[in-house]
Amino acid sequence: MAKVKGLRCRECGRDYPVEPIHVCEFCFGPLEVVYDYEEIRKRVSREKIENGPKSLWRYVDLLPVENPTVGLTAGFTPLKKAEKLGEVLGLRNLYIKDDSVNHPTLSFKDRVVSVAISKAREFGFDTAACASTGNLANSVAAHCAQAGLNCFVFIPANLETQKIYGSLVFNPTVVAVEGTYDDVNRLCSEIANDLGWAFVNINIRPYYAEGSKTLAYEVVEQLGWKAPDAVVAPAASGSLYTKIWKGLKEMKEVGLIDSVNTRMYGAQAEGCSPIAQAWREGRDFIKPVKPDTIAKSIAIGNPADGIYALQTTKESNGDWETATDREIIEAMKLLAQTEGIFTETAGGTTIAVLKKLAQKGAFDPDEVVVAYITGNGYKTLEVLDGHLSEPVRIQATLRDFKEKVLAKV
Amino acid sequence: MAKVKGLRCRECGRDYPVEPIHVCEFCFGPLEVVYDYEEIRKRVSREKIENGPKSLWRYVDLLPVENPTVGLTAGFTPLKKAEKLGEVLGLRNLYIKDDSVNHPTLSFKDRVVSVAISKAREFGFDTAACASTGNLANSVAAHCAQAGLNCFVFIPANLETQKIYGSLVFNPTVVAVEGTYDDVNRLCSEIANDLGWAFVNINIRPYYAEGSKTLAYEVVEQLGWKAPDAVVAPAASGSLYTKIWKGLKEMKEVGLIDSVNTRMYGAQAEGCSPIAQAWREGRDFIKPVKPDTIAKSIAIGNPADGIYALQTTKESNGDWETATDREIIEAMKLLAQTEGIFTETAGGTTIAVLKKLAQKGAFDPDEVVVAYITGNGYKTLEVLDGHLSEPVRIQATLRDFKEKVLAKV
Repeated sequence: MAKVKGLRCRECGRDYPVEPIHVCEFCFGPLEVVYDYEEIRKRVSREKIENGPKSLWRYVDLLPVENPTVGLTAGFTPLKKAEKLGEVLGLRNLYIKDDSVNHPTLSFKDRVVSVAISKAREFGFDTAACASTGNLANSVAAHCAQAGLNCFVFIPANLETQKIYGSLVFNPTVVAVEGTYDDVNRLCSEIANDLGWAFVNINIRPYYAEGSKTLAYEVVEQLGWKAPDAVVAPAASGSLYTKIWKGLKEMKEVGLIDSVNTRMYGAQAEGCSPIAQAWREGRDFIKPVKPDTIAKSIAIGNPADGIYALQTTKESNGDWETATDREIIEAMKLLAQTEGIFTETAGGTTIAVLKKLAQKGAFDPDEVVVAYITGNGYKTLEVLDGHLSEPVRIQATLRDFKEKVLAKV
Repeated sequence: MAKVKGLRCRECGRDYPVEPIHVCEFCFGPLEVVYDYEEIRKRVSREKIENGPKSLWRYVDLLPVENPTVGLTAGFTPLKKAEKLGEVLGLRNLYIKDDSVNHPTLSFKDRVVSVAISKAREFGFDTAACASTGNLANSVAAHCAQAGLNCFVFIPANLETQKIYGSLVFNPTVVAVEGTYDDVNRLCSEIANDLGWAFVNINIRPYYAEGSKTLAYEVVEQLGWKAPDAVVAPAASGSLYTKIWKGLKEMKEVGLIDSVNTRMYGAQAEGCSPIAQAWREGRDFIKPVKPDTIAKSIAIGNPADGIYALQTTKESNGDWETATDREIIEAMKLLAQTEGIFTETAGGTTIAVLKKLAQKGAFDPDEVVVAYITGNGYKTLEVLDGHLSEPVRIQATLRDFKEKVLAKV
């Protein structure tokens, strides 16, 4: 028996075989991987998982890959009990799932990309690609290097070159496209159709997106095989947020845990919050917005999984909150200064929203709350310009130190 | 019985109690932690360690800390089988120990600092400090934030501010000292004496340095409880290199492994290679040099543990090699493009030296060789200026893509 039954359209329910396709031919709905949970139930056990590899591949039985060959160290990141931040927020059981130290390129993208590139290899592709300016490009370039696949990274031409060193070092072909990010994406869809390359977040998307489920699996295992009471996760396309929920439900489905009563809270930047806006206004559809926020890694104005994210919120009794740019920076500093974790703007958005939710009483003080930190602050230092204290300048003498520093702290 | 007997002078052998001191009062030799290995032998087992925390603290029985309270997620980084790089170098069992994804600040310093700050707390210090411009400062600032200790970071005043954002975000007091790096260090020693603060690499150094032993322990466990045949590690002060060797020998001493026949190879940048030069010239003393290399994170001209590093090389039948700045950059790209790991210049030095050693036949092709990658390339992108390929610029059309990109790859 196979663990994966096939793909299914999320809209009309039509079934498709396991192929590099992502859209229903009839209704244009997105395709999703469908599993045989009876079969998986026979394969998995807590013990087998605990003795598995120290990476997300300990959950291979719940992923659409038969033979993982790439990203073998991805995932399995720390879940840190956040005592000090919890004290500030009045939460006694707050945890940070810390993908800022994910392997090898320091964001949760290493999860989805290791699944996508492993799958692309199973499909027999020799070339993988993506459109991205940041974390996704870094991760695709790194995993293609590991896999020995040809790699193409498409970026808007107006990007400064140093921003892409973290991709270029892996030696992909970087194509700088004149136009907006939307123009770049449109061209990528054309190329995917025309050349049949593996675009990780286009034709490989159904498999790629499943990698985010491991963010749920790992947390449940790290909590001693219990689902958290509440989760706060950032949303760009809405995929990560919905897949965490899918992952939690699957763990119950296959008998790894007995119950899931997790409330799913979504975090968006005020300057790009189409899902949060729809939720607030009680809509079941998304109105696209034009992003205007420093949180560029989650600034998707027309989120592909927005409506499924809204369904997740409803199903789980969750909620949405947003954070301004100023709140995002303050939250980055708060997380750094309480827990020693330096995240980027998406993580700042999550912590700012966590704080707002805590302040409005969304959590009981004893509840187990998990906040997902998805990227690393060392990659985008420039957002901190003007937001940090200045060094104190002194001469190299003990006396000057005492006068100018010690006397003032 | 206590696992730690005390401190002992490496030169004259005089014993000292467990206190925040680092230099022998009689001969000015460095002090080192001495253990009761009989006692530790009773405490440790492979099984106990395997069931321990998923951090370097699974080895607490071999560390000079009673009650770890800081850096609880540090260490336990991946050991990656380097198939593709191994193929290039003719090594069938090459492994990368990847501290570029160490928690929380992406370098091996998170190991030594988590031990140092935990120990500083045990001693009752309320203030910790260091002189550093890079990885050490990041890690000290992060761990002090976690611990709730006051933190002072001393830097040379001519450093660009953005270089220290990765420390400032954790809100230490940053003191910019007019003068060279040596002036900064001298001032720090004065302050350590005068104020009794915990300078992690001055008065806390004997404990701090022990954290590097976990680089040996983890590799042995990850190899299935076997010591590697050869190790390549970078050397700045020489401490990390000598402590890996100490760690390997200790594992045999306490019965975790049966034998250690590891050859210890040291890597330095050509522009700052006082230990390698001494080795080449058959000296048992170090002549200080003035650093002139892009590998700033390992550019120590007068290495404190240089002579002990030389002893380690002799004892283990090892060797030293150096790499030019150009070779360092090329090796960073080689590692990225074969293994998908983006390291900084210290890692580039290690890989360049690994390559030279492989080319001159230092390793049997089937030997288990471990190269230590100690830091992350995303922190110092600027060293790649002028060393990477340029993006190809196109219009946002399939036709332009085919003409300008596809036709040329």
